[in-house]
Amino acid sequence: MYELYYWSEIQGRGEFVRLVLEDLGQPYVDIGRDKGDEAVAEALDGVLAPYAFAPPVLRARDLVISQTALITRWLGEKHGLAPADEKGRLQAAMIALTIADLVAETHDTHHPINVGETYEKQKAPAHARSRAFRQLRIPKFLGYLERILEQSGDYLVGTPSYVDLSAFQVLDGLTYAFPRTVHRQHVPRLRKLHERIARRPGIAAYLGSERRLPHSEAGIFRHYPELEAA
Amino acid sequence: MYELYYWSEIQGRGEFVRLVLEDLGQPYVDIGRDKGDEAVAEALDGVLAPYAFAPPVLRARDLVISQTALITRWLGEKHGLAPADEKGRLQAAMIALTIADLVAETHDTHHPINVGETYEKQKAPAHARSRAFRQLRIPKFLGYLERILEQSGDYLVGTPSYVDLSAFQVLDGLTYAFPRTVHRQHVPRLRKLHERIARRPGIAAYLGSERRLPHSEAGIFRHYPELEAA
Repeated sequence: MYELYYWSEIQGRGEFVRLVLEDLGQPYVDIGRDKGDEAVAEALDGVLAPYAFAPPVLRARDLVISQTALITRWLGEKHGLAPADEKGRLQAAMIALTIADLVAETHDTHHPINVGETYEKQKAPAHARSRAFRQLRIPKFLGYLERILEQSGDYLVGTPSYVDLSAFQVLDGLTYAFPRTVHRQHVPRLRKLHERIARRPGIAAYLGSERRLPHSEAGIFRHYPELEAA
Repeated sequence: MYELYYWSEIQGRGEFVRLVLEDLGQPYVDIGRDKGDEAVAEALDGVLAPYAFAPPVLRARDLVISQTALITRWLGEKHGLAPADEKGRLQAAMIALTIADLVAETHDTHHPINVGETYEKQKAPAHARSRAFRQLRIPKFLGYLERILEQSGDYLVGTPSYVDLSAFQVLDGLTYAFPRTVHRQHVPRLRKLHERIARRPGIAAYLGSERRLPHSEAGIFRHYPELEAA
């Protein structure tokens, strides 16, 4: 039985791990939601220390794994949701880490100065950073995923893998946060992948459940209309 | 024979890979330095596409590997500069990814708004971001590494591994960029690790060679006195 340590009230980075667990049908305890955020904070200084820097963290028997792209890779490779060969595994891992970079940059659009302060205290630089993000970074990252799909086919590394779930989630979140910008991108294969992933039995069941929280302005993908204004 | 694709005139993220190759004594062609940055740019659209998003990229026979922490892990595990057991390998990978996050945050201190513009065009937000970085992030990240060493001993995961080289490099770079801030941190074990790594035969030879470029204001770790002023 896996234990997932993540904050209870947002999708956040924990969602990338949840999607893999839900797709696999692996039972897990969502510690933050079951026991509260205090239990997550205590674990970070306790059973998860010292190697886990921040949530999400997965605990499996005596293994403690942090860093989103490492957790999803480990789960995917362990449970057959990853290529079996080294080349494919490295390709999936590379894409997963690049998506993690995109997630970090998305977070910085509303927190460009200080993660310890609210968005409201950094609105002017957030506006400037969001503009560059919309104009340069969204096209670059989504174009990267689209070009891979042009070569690989229906899934990013040929066969369905954990990284397709991460691509689903990042497109889902960016569409919520920057709808007009995302709709303007020419990424037909990536959109098809999003639809394909949403129809997978485990994912469809999860998205229809109460466990799937809505996107919100407490998470990573936030919709502030002023950050998309021209 | 490995091929490393990275820009020729800076240490940058490529340096984390170089340190592993140099420590291991593995021969490699440093494509940017041998053939120029145009060769790197061309390869990104050619032999390295579509999976590699950005340099550094390592090519080994038919394998193309990007993402610094993935490259160093792969090299370390292949050549015995990593733990042999799963638990240790995951610990090293977690730390390496956390160091990669620290490197990205360091870059953002001089480019908080737009990676496509010069530092000079974002000096005011750079000052604000650097302040938060010095006050909150440097203590948090370096404290994390120090706490691990308190538990693990002379090396971050018990035996010498690629992640110790990354810790060396990030402390080295931060000390160049924010000397007063770093000197104020109480991280005696991390400083000892830095000294220990600098004495390893392959690393000592490399640091004394012309291949080791100096830190500079074209790289990731930049020393702008105004970003450290109170």
